Amino acid sequence: MPSKTPLSDISSDLAHGVTSRRAFLRTATLSAAGAAALAACSKDAAAKPNTASPEMAGHPAGTAAPAAAPLSPRAAADAMDAMHEKGIKAFPAKTAGLGNQLMAPKMDKGCKVYDLTASEIQWEVSPGQMVAAMAYNGQVPGPQIRVREGDRVRVNLKNELKQSTAIHFHGLELPNDMDGVPFITQPPVKPGESFTYEFTVPEGNSGSHMYHSHHNAAAQVGLGLLGAFIVEPRSPRAIEKVDHDYVLILNDGMHGFTINGKGFPATQPFTAKLGEKVRIRYMNEGMMIHPMHLHGMHMTVIDKDGWAQPQPWKCDTLNIAPGERWDVIVNCNNPGTWAFHCHILGHAESDHGMFGMVTALVVSK
Amino acid sequence: MPSKTPLSDISSDLAHGVTSRRAFLRTATLSAAGAAALAACSKDAAAKPNTASPEMAGHPAGTAAPAAAPLSPRAAADAMDAMHEKGIKAFPAKTAGLGNQLMAPKMDKGCKVYDLTASEIQWEVSPGQMVAAMAYNGQVPGPQIRVREGDRVRVNLKNELKQSTAIHFHGLELPNDMDGVPFITQPPVKPGESFTYEFTVPEGNSGSHMYHSHHNAAAQVGLGLLGAFIVEPRSPRAIEKVDHDYVLILNDGMHGFTINGKGFPATQPFTAKLGEKVRIRYMNEGMMIHPMHLHGMHMTVIDKDGWAQPQPWKCDTLNIAPGERWDVIVNCNNPGTWAFHCHILGHAESDHGMFGMVTALVVSK
Amino acid sequence: MPSKTPLSDISSDLAHGVTSRRAFLRTATLSAAGAAALAACSKDAAAKPNTASPEMAGHPAGTAAPAAAPLSPRAAADAMDAMHEKGIKAFPAKTAGLGNQLMAPKMDKGCKVYDLTASEIQWEVSPGQMVAAMAYNGQVPGPQIRVREGDRVRVNLKNELKQSTAIHFHGLELPNDMDGVPFITQPPVKPGESFTYEFTVPEGNSGSHMYHSHHNAAAQVGLGLLGAFIVEPRSPRAIEKVDHDYVLILNDGMHGFTINGKGFPATQPFTAKLGEKVRIRYMNEGMMIHPMHLHGMHMTVIDKDGWAQPQPWKCDTLNIAPGERWDVIVNCNNPGTWAFHCHILGHAESDHGMFGMVTALVVSK
Repeated sequence: MPSKTPLSDISSDLAHGVTSRRAFLRTATLSAAGAAALAACSKDAAAKPNTASPEMAGHPAGTAAPAAAPLSPRAAADAMDAMHEKGIKAFPAKTAGLGNQLMAPKMDKGCKVYDLTASEIQWEVSPGQMVAAMAYNGQVPGPQIRVREGDRVRVNLKNELKQSTAIHFHGLELPNDMDGVPFITQPPVKPGESFTYEFTVPEGNSGSHMYHSHHNAAAQVGLGLLGAFIVEPRSPRAIEKVDHDYVLILNDGMHGFTINGKGFPATQPFTAKLGEKVRIRYMNEGMMIHPMHLHGMHMTVIDKDGWAQPQPWKCDTLNIAPGERWDVIVNCNNPGTWAFHCHILGHAESDHGMFGMVTALVVSK
Repeated sequence: MPSKTPLSDISSDLAHGVTSRRAFLRTATLSAAGAAALAACSKDAAAKPNTASPEMAGHPAGTAAPAAAPLSPRAAADAMDAMHEKGIKAFPAKTAGLGNQLMAPKMDKGCKVYDLTASEIQWEVSPGQMVAAMAYNGQVPGPQIRVREGDRVRVNLKNELKQSTAIHFHGLELPNDMDGVPFITQPPVKPGESFTYEFTVPEGNSGSHMYHSHHNAAAQVGLGLLGAFIVEPRSPRAIEKVDHDYVLILNDGMHGFTINGKGFPATQPFTAKLGEKVRIRYMNEGMMIHPMHLHGMHMTVIDKDGWAQPQPWKCDTLNIAPGERWDVIVNCNNPGTWAFHCHILGHAESDHGMFGMVTALVVSK
Repeated sequence: MPSKTPLSDISSDLAHGVTSRRAFLRTATLSAAGAAALAACSKDAAAKPNTASPEMAGHPAGTAAPAAAPLSPRAAADAMDAMHEKGIKAFPAKTAGLGNQLMAPKMDKGCKVYDLTASEIQWEVSPGQMVAAMAYNGQVPGPQIRVREGDRVRVNLKNELKQSTAIHFHGLELPNDMDGVPFITQPPVKPGESFTYEFTVPEGNSGSHMYHSHHNAAAQVGLGLLGAFIVEPRSPRAIEKVDHDYVLILNDGMHGFTINGKGFPATQPFTAKLGEKVRIRYMNEGMMIHPMHLHGMHMTVIDKDGWAQPQPWKCDTLNIAPGERWDVIVNCNNPGTWAFHCHILGHAESDHGMFGMVTALVVSK
């Protein structure tokens, strides 16, 4: 006997204005069975508390009509659209805290000194959604460090967490004892203790790198102990001369799907004027791939993990795997507000509207 | 104490001729515990109703012997093999409906006009497996649109769904108001309403692109609102002069694992004569990667997202991420029927035989 | 109302020295609800029995303090660190059995003959963790086959399994009847029966290839029926002249996350002397991507699926998709013990310490 999964199951939810998580799951899976189990164990439930209920996604509670009186199809569509509109109109939404802020070093006899304190904080991922986080200097991602090849750098790590930690400078080719792997290259930095990393950034090791915990890292990086470590080259290539240099750190851990520590509509838009050149540094600190899609203009890929590709190449969707960094150039020759999101659509949109890994590139005339 | 997971658990299932979903799950996980919960929440359960029971995968019910009398190991192997053989012998299986059909435009004063109606349909993914779908013109994928760079194109979208929708032309660099993102570039197209997209395909924007819903898209694209949008170049490169030009649209949503809207054995084989050249345009409209593996001959990668790679390069397994398009050339210099499938083996084969993302390239003498 | 997930939930576990799987899951998800269901259906539960309890991960039972008396934060951190240290100090841990051992062929009139017997065995993935496996010649991965382009090769497959099987030579461009796909290119090889593959390795088809089951393959490859098939070129390129040639076969099936059939700390380290050149041949036989990250030195990518890339390119994290092979060169110019792991951190580390896809490249002075 042929199996039929009537679309009316979905439509009836919509017709009734049911926009609950349960209805979403049914829509998403077309499976009546196992919804409860699915709810408990889907990535969605595990990783995206922000989609579990409308208010968490930045939509005030009560948007969805009570299911008492069935809505007409048009009214159901209007109800869904209203949620989508509200999310987009809220963008960019204000939240407390901003990560990835450029950090000015203290200078000590020619050495650039960065003090990083790891501590436990509450972090507002999207409006009203507070999550437990571990952060460097209270930021998720941690402060952006920018140095130049050949620079002498010192990073003073203070551990105010309740567990040990350590910093790995991902992409930097440092002496082994500065590599940040507890029990291999150093002892763990215990709660209340400090550790100093000091090194010269190798010549030729420029590009988009990262620093993050390398102890209990699946948890600590997922909770926010990560940041951009950018090494400027001594002699920039012509293609690197841009008007804006943006970092997009992707994460998909306990805070849901985030760009620079925030989920849509709290993500920050990227802006440029018509004719300007933008550099985007993608960094994936999560556990999943994120194929980032820019609307309206293509991207020219120049670097992988800080190393120049043999020749630049073009795309509109770039797959960023965990631990990878990819640098691209966008020639902003098309004016408008361009959607810019992960193309795993479940990381970017539900029937409640856009969330998570969505932002925009705004090209103004 | 060492933990042992005896293979006899698996073998006993096989020996008993038990080829149920439960047995498959046990085989797949080697875990006795939690099978029920797993069944409810695995990707398998959520995304592949077609593998949930033998009849859904195109195998008549009753293939599996009742467990009453244990089978000898050889008889159990024969029973499993019979299911595998039946699937392969059924290939290519007839099903109602064929997606990705080339659509001839109407001409209006030099403008190529395409009328697309989005509606809810039942779609036969594999023999006897009817699924709820959303489709353009009753096809999953929607009709294939093929134009040339510089062409004037009009797409009339009529929405006969019960929810709003909109079309994004993924990969085309259009004016912002033609970008198809509700509340950013246009209002949503409400049920019963229409919207007209009209634009000139930019010069230099040739290649393999897509059109799909950009509203409630995780659901709408998963249900079938997608299609190929191919832009022929004015001046094809020598390497583009091929005998066959095939499109493979990959999806992994509510219809299971599909190539051009069908799961094996209902997928269509691709054919060529010995010595011919074939172009394959991979397009991923799903939420997972699909590393496509061709047996017997390598593929030469020429384009990414419609843009020429700096130099062609060769492979036999090409990883296609969501939103990406990759174009490859195959020189059909090896005669035979060649398996051609996603190399995430769970997207292509179970102990019931091949299913989902499997097809063949048939090179005849 | 803003939702708060207090970090104290996590910390209290840590403070109490609770290092159970349940606590790990709570830490990992920050979700109190659904932990039981999650435990049953997470990838973790399905794929990594080795992380289900401390003793399975190579840590003696009883490492975690009983929860009766709450530990101080420092004592809790010490308890966690002790587990991490124990795993690392155990590396490389002895286990029974070693896969991927170079196999010397018998010669028969100029033909290189390899006898492979597929059978069911118990395999020690990590210390004390015995798993049900299917293996060629009792090895997981099977014996490493190394031939030269143009060689005549015969593989005698004997099936001592309880189910049928067949061998596909993944990456080799063979005559169709040697392609190893039951019911398409050959009958299945039944339990107790044998099949002989014989072919000439095509000129130009050198590089890193694989052999594996192509029957019930999601299960059989996941259980161990796979191996490296390496074809040496007649005329090696200068860049191929290396001091060490290492194979890393990645898998993520029923044996957990493994490199060459073993999970950390039972993985084998790779070694080189300062100034030496190492070639690494990555092969993914699993169902997930594995972005492999080498600390301390970059990798120069030379080949994809056995085909030279147009130009070598550099990275420190290389994404390997199922079915893919990537060859890289490492110039070992940085002395020390360098962590080398999959950068999906959940494949490499839990709060119990490192496990699974972790090894080291040890560069000695």
